[in-house]
Amino acid sequence: MKAILIVVDGLGDRQIKELGNRTPLEAVEKPALDTLARLGVNGIMDTISPGTPPGSDTAHLAIFGYNPHTVYRGRGVFEALGSGIEVGREDVAFRCNFATVDGSMTVTDRRAGRISTEEAAALSQALTDLELPDSGLKLIFRHSTEHRGSLLLRGGGVSYQVSDSDPEDVGRKVNMVTPLDDSPDAKRTAEAMNEMTAKTYELLRNHPVNEGRVKRELPPANILLFRGAGRLPDLTPMTEIYKIRASCVVPNALVRGVAMTAGMKPVFVPTATGTVKSDLGAKAEAAVRSLPENDLVFIHVKGVDNASHDGNLAEKMAMIGKVDGMVRYLLDHTDPEEVCIAITADHATPVKIKRHTGDPVPLALMGGGVVADDVSVYSERACARGGLGRIRGVDLVPTLMNLLGKTEKFGA
Amino acid sequence: MKAILIVVDGLGDRQIKELGNRTPLEAVEKPALDTLARLGVNGIMDTISPGTPPGSDTAHLAIFGYNPHTVYRGRGVFEALGSGIEVGREDVAFRCNFATVDGSMTVTDRRAGRISTEEAAALSQALTDLELPDSGLKLIFRHSTEHRGSLLLRGGGVSYQVSDSDPEDVGRKVNMVTPLDDSPDAKRTAEAMNEMTAKTYELLRNHPVNEGRVKRELPPANILLFRGAGRLPDLTPMTEIYKIRASCVVPNALVRGVAMTAGMKPVFVPTATGTVKSDLGAKAEAAVRSLPENDLVFIHVKGVDNASHDGNLAEKMAMIGKVDGMVRYLLDHTDPEEVCIAITADHATPVKIKRHTGDPVPLALMGGGVVADDVSVYSERACARGGLGRIRGVDLVPTLMNLLGKTEKFGA
Repeated sequence: MKAILIVVDGLGDRQIKELGNRTPLEAVEKPALDTLARLGVNGIMDTISPGTPPGSDTAHLAIFGYNPHTVYRGRGVFEALGSGIEVGREDVAFRCNFATVDGSMTVTDRRAGRISTEEAAALSQALTDLELPDSGLKLIFRHSTEHRGSLLLRGGGVSYQVSDSDPEDVGRKVNMVTPLDDSPDAKRTAEAMNEMTAKTYELLRNHPVNEGRVKRELPPANILLFRGAGRLPDLTPMTEIYKIRASCVVPNALVRGVAMTAGMKPVFVPTATGTVKSDLGAKAEAAVRSLPENDLVFIHVKGVDNASHDGNLAEKMAMIGKVDGMVRYLLDHTDPEEVCIAITADHATPVKIKRHTGDPVPLALMGGGVVADDVSVYSERACARGGLGRIRGVDLVPTLMNLLGKTEKFGA
Repeated sequence: MKAILIVVDGLGDRQIKELGNRTPLEAVEKPALDTLARLGVNGIMDTISPGTPPGSDTAHLAIFGYNPHTVYRGRGVFEALGSGIEVGREDVAFRCNFATVDGSMTVTDRRAGRISTEEAAALSQALTDLELPDSGLKLIFRHSTEHRGSLLLRGGGVSYQVSDSDPEDVGRKVNMVTPLDDSPDAKRTAEAMNEMTAKTYELLRNHPVNEGRVKRELPPANILLFRGAGRLPDLTPMTEIYKIRASCVVPNALVRGVAMTAGMKPVFVPTATGTVKSDLGAKAEAAVRSLPENDLVFIHVKGVDNASHDGNLAEKMAMIGKVDGMVRYLLDHTDPEEVCIAITADHATPVKIKRHTGDPVPLALMGGGVVADDVSVYSERACARGGLGRIRGVDLVPTLMNLLGKTEKFGA
């Protein structure tokens, strides 16, 4: 037995009046997802715990079997790993946003108008040789998709106990980074990050790409905002725990970083962009191609969450339709006697709320002889009646590994 | 979004042969409760853990989000707080019962025939100036409802590690209070409590109120029994954790004390008595009046538990009918787009058992866009098929706070 695990970021939602009190999942035609639910066993899952809105990083740590309350040490390190930066045990990394500030350093767009991956990549050229000569620190910036990137600090005495420069809201000034403890390392790191903030503004404000954007009346990506200082979590990769080989098809750098920390090897799909335009068909093909050499293949879909954060119901529903096409391909190209398929979300992002919430998410699991229930629709409502009941995120991977025969007996 | 949380004390029950194997909840017409279940999502809840019969104090600690195994340090302190006594960190408080003993100090009625609030209040006048001159302790007695009251000990070196004088059963002698550890504080506290026991008997036995009761062939309230020595739990008020304002409509002193410890401001309703005669309509009105200044309003109904402890099925069913009227008022005076309503019990008190049991209790939750299930009856049996599945008491407040948008994201 092998397994394909699909996590659709931000898929969960609430019932919406305009949809006749249905959820987006209930209002979309999605025959493949419903087939998966019908052939399998279903349930709802509290990724962390009931009511707790998970971040994408802590959610995936939990889904991969780790207690995030114990192992989590900040997001930045996952973004860096996922962006292809090699991260050492002592390094500290930040998530970065290309953003727009006005002349008074007030943030007017936290994502620089969701700048395209291409334009952001061009801007990133200006940030390859970052240096703070007096600090003794090595600085590595890497762009991932759209407005997203990461920055790694390496060198004697850096700390992840520092605050964010990102004010997390428009209309507010860029924050000074401050140390969160009394250590000289935190002080040094905070000072370096404040220097860096000024430097990125200098390097980006008059960049030709931004001049072009201003001409097109688009917000210029004239600064990098930093947040989520992090260090590698102290954990044993899932692949070692279960003695398996695992790959991941994850265009989103943050989630890819978490998957890599758990021991999965990334499979890159150039047309899979981690946006609503992502080529989910190509991801499904890559996943199936990756199956022969792996016990577990993890597929992550980000676009549904993007649409949800934007409050764009039509786009969320369209993306669910695309996910259904991806699942159709997987159903058509795998044998349930040989491959289990599980689909769930890392958290709900209700389109009316536009941010992560702590609602339970639907989970469907087929293949491997699981005892199917009588649920025939993949939705928040229908899965709640399913045979898996209500489980926690940390229980998902053990459930899959049990079907794969990879869990070890405890006791005699 | 705001929330109203209703806890009906002792509501849960078992199927009863004489009711055609229905539970009291199933045998009563209760259209408002059923509407709540039909419009919302339902489940069953283990307030502490499956099979554990909760006390009213530990149950409410759990329902307010605290692990009672960690924070609980005895009930007496809640009773004192709820009775309006200011309680300091070092104080120790006891729950007291007006009770009936015979000449050999054998308890013949642990509640002095459920003495009325009015008569008990009159008797309490004799207990206002309690003094143990040699002890160096300050003693504060406060009566709450019916036979219930509390006693606070203040002064250098008191301990809650002492046993109860209340033998918890009729036909047994009043217990000597004994220290439960080797500390001089516990020894001093036990000695003071034994002196107090004798003193209350002296002050009450020939009191005119009791002479009147004897004439009317009612058991005299001729002693105070002490139990549940307690100290303030070490916890952060829920109102601070979630940055909310909360009020509580709770005539019962014990539960009011727990609610106050969790940060709720008590709203007093003179006609709400915490008995089967309580004016639940006035409580509903007070709750709705309290909504504008609060995010959460907690309503507690005690009478159902009283009827259950007495094994009085008819009265339990009548009380459930009254609860239904209260919920009708709440449904008629709130908008589910703005106010969530949740109803549950703190524990079951099956009328055939007459004491708290560890059965799961039914939970219904409507409003705020929760994904409704197909449950249309509020009962132990129907809610077990609901979309919330089976949760723990500590998960209830996070679930509500998630709907109110008051939970903080963990991770990024």
